[in-house]
Amino acid sequence: MLIKNVVLDDRRCNILVRDGRFACLDAADGAEAEEVLDAGGAAILPAFYNTHTHAAMTLLRGYGDDNPLHVWLEEYVWPFEAKLGAADIHRGSELALKEMIATGTVFFNDMYFFIDETIPLVDSYGMRAAIGVTVMENHPQVLRDEKARRVREWRDTDRILLTVAPHAVYTVGRETLISSARLARENGRKIHIHLSETEKEVQDCIAQTGMTPVRYLDSIGFLGPDVIAAHCVHVDKEEWDILAERGVTVSHCPCSNMKLGSGRFPYELAIASGVRVTLGTDGCSSNNNLDMREEMKMAALLAKVTGDAALLNAHQVLQWATRNGAEAFGYDAGVISEGKLADAILVSMDGPKMQPCYSLISNWVYSADSSCIKHVICNGKVLL
Amino acid sequence: MLIKNVVLDDRRCNILVRDGRFACLDAADGAEAEEVLDAGGAAILPAFYNTHTHAAMTLLRGYGDDNPLHVWLEEYVWPFEAKLGAADIHRGSELALKEMIATGTVFFNDMYFFIDETIPLVDSYGMRAAIGVTVMENHPQVLRDEKARRVREWRDTDRILLTVAPHAVYTVGRETLISSARLARENGRKIHIHLSETEKEVQDCIAQTGMTPVRYLDSIGFLGPDVIAAHCVHVDKEEWDILAERGVTVSHCPCSNMKLGSGRFPYELAIASGVRVTLGTDGCSSNNNLDMREEMKMAALLAKVTGDAALLNAHQVLQWATRNGAEAFGYDAGVISEGKLADAILVSMDGPKMQPCYSLISNWVYSADSSCIKHVICNGKVLL
Repeated sequence: MLIKNVVLDDRRCNILVRDGRFACLDAADGAEAEEVLDAGGAAILPAFYNTHTHAAMTLLRGYGDDNPLHVWLEEYVWPFEAKLGAADIHRGSELALKEMIATGTVFFNDMYFFIDETIPLVDSYGMRAAIGVTVMENHPQVLRDEKARRVREWRDTDRILLTVAPHAVYTVGRETLISSARLARENGRKIHIHLSETEKEVQDCIAQTGMTPVRYLDSIGFLGPDVIAAHCVHVDKEEWDILAERGVTVSHCPCSNMKLGSGRFPYELAIASGVRVTLGTDGCSSNNNLDMREEMKMAALLAKVTGDAALLNAHQVLQWATRNGAEAFGYDAGVISEGKLADAILVSMDGPKMQPCYSLISNWVYSADSSCIKHVICNGKVLL
Repeated sequence: MLIKNVVLDDRRCNILVRDGRFACLDAADGAEAEEVLDAGGAAILPAFYNTHTHAAMTLLRGYGDDNPLHVWLEEYVWPFEAKLGAADIHRGSELALKEMIATGTVFFNDMYFFIDETIPLVDSYGMRAAIGVTVMENHPQVLRDEKARRVREWRDTDRILLTVAPHAVYTVGRETLISSARLARENGRKIHIHLSETEKEVQDCIAQTGMTPVRYLDSIGFLGPDVIAAHCVHVDKEEWDILAERGVTVSHCPCSNMKLGSGRFPYELAIASGVRVTLGTDGCSSNNNLDMREEMKMAALLAKVTGDAALLNAHQVLQWATRNGAEAFGYDAGVISEGKLADAILVSMDGPKMQPCYSLISNWVYSADSSCIKHVICNGKVLL
């Protein structure tokens, strides 16, 4: 495929895509290809990697909003989820995929139920995903033989990975945490977990184990470079050093942390520690959308609110939302350069939100919205 | 005009608009009108009233972003502004109007320079605005006879008001603050001022006057129901009571407060005080857009982040962004009901961001973006 007439770093060029990768960023004006996409002067930017979702929770968008947390969970979310069947998950996941593509996301790291509904949808929509085999105690999702077999027998494709997803330290016991991690590692799967999302989670963990969640997981050998830990809001300086030393990837979910009153992510500590930080939207019921552009702005502004207007600049947060997420899952993507996977969005420069343009990245992070997105490309194929 | 096939509060209806007002919300299917707008099942919602802007600062969108505050101001914003002439303000204001209309805003309360460029643009684009005659000491904007004459001689139209806009307590001396307020009141103009935006402003004011900015302004008789005070981030409980007692309207600008590191607006105190709170985007250089939908989400989430997931619900923040702003400027608008001014937006329910729909308001505040806006109506005329 040839992407004609596209702006890359302030320079107009033609980009050749071959075998799902950027083959040449400076093709001749007369270059030919089976398929030609005329970008019409739009700018090319890396597409989003959303590293923490519960995709089918689109079904709960706006359901029970603005209630105190325990009312929202106990009277709305949990009773609703208890009734969900495979057909519901199919509908909710499909809605999520449509929204993600429309807002520039090509990959999501999911943790939910009925994954046999979600996997074929991801495949047919042409997206990428890491689909979690969810593990919770006292729940139909406990780690049974059938689940373990699934994890052992699944063969990753170029767009779909399986992960092992023990839900959190407060829903999964010590033995199951250990066996989940072992199962994942024996089969080369990533591990996806919620970690230190709320103050209550930390206090309860201390009461039960004598340790904070990060220290507790470290004490049982759970943490490693294959772990993607969502939230990490209540993590102290020493714990950030532990996460860095173990090579853990953190998925920061600003909208969710704000909407649920979980607290402000400790940007200063996270950045200083050198941990790989990525961005996630979380599920729609705590956001209420899957829009990673909005998530970038939310993160960059929430970082600054306490006084440092230079903390988490536009380039950094774009990297969190794209390259860092890709790297965490082993995709050679997130940057527009030759040889990299062709995951990209084309952003129109015509609308008022993108003008004037001193900095394309700054306009994209702080000013744009999904109305600026013209095309979305994943693995060299045009999805939008 | 007849707006056909529109959804109002979950009910499909036809709406008749006459003389710039909603004349009938339940017109017959066969009703006729000179002009017919088929909403195609879109929902009607009140349009936005943006109560604090510097419209032509679209020219500085993304210029010098992510620098420490003093570097940004001293090396970027001020040198840039010093070079702006009338033709620049014309271009910047026009870009702002286009963006505001595209994002559902019909009114803005502006404070900037070369107002003779902005006023005819507002008129020709069909929007509403309150245009401030800016007053600053040691600056070409000092209150001179010519400015005072302008304030006295201007005759408000049904869409354009003139205000007196002494910039802030740190840029306008005591005598000029007093004379500005007197000039405004003698001529029935609103007063637009920046107030207690940063901790530094408060400390400097205490050092110079022995009082915080709110107490200082109150001590010179400045505060009243004709005052629109932007920001009010660093305002204590007693000061909120003063603002409430004087009937001051506050313009809350969450994106700007976050981006510049000014601090978190004290939502708890503001709401408890009963002060009329409205929403503003501030200028593009500290935001970086004029999108009031995004501003609503930012406010509602920033309110919640410290722990109360029920603080500032979607209905409240929508009221801040619409009806409260209209009321502050004496417009009988901000609600879709018979007899009210026809300022409205039509929001498509078809896209994934608006589905499913347990609560239209919740979807609009927390999930939507400008791509969902089909039409914008101001004073009974279709602008988009």
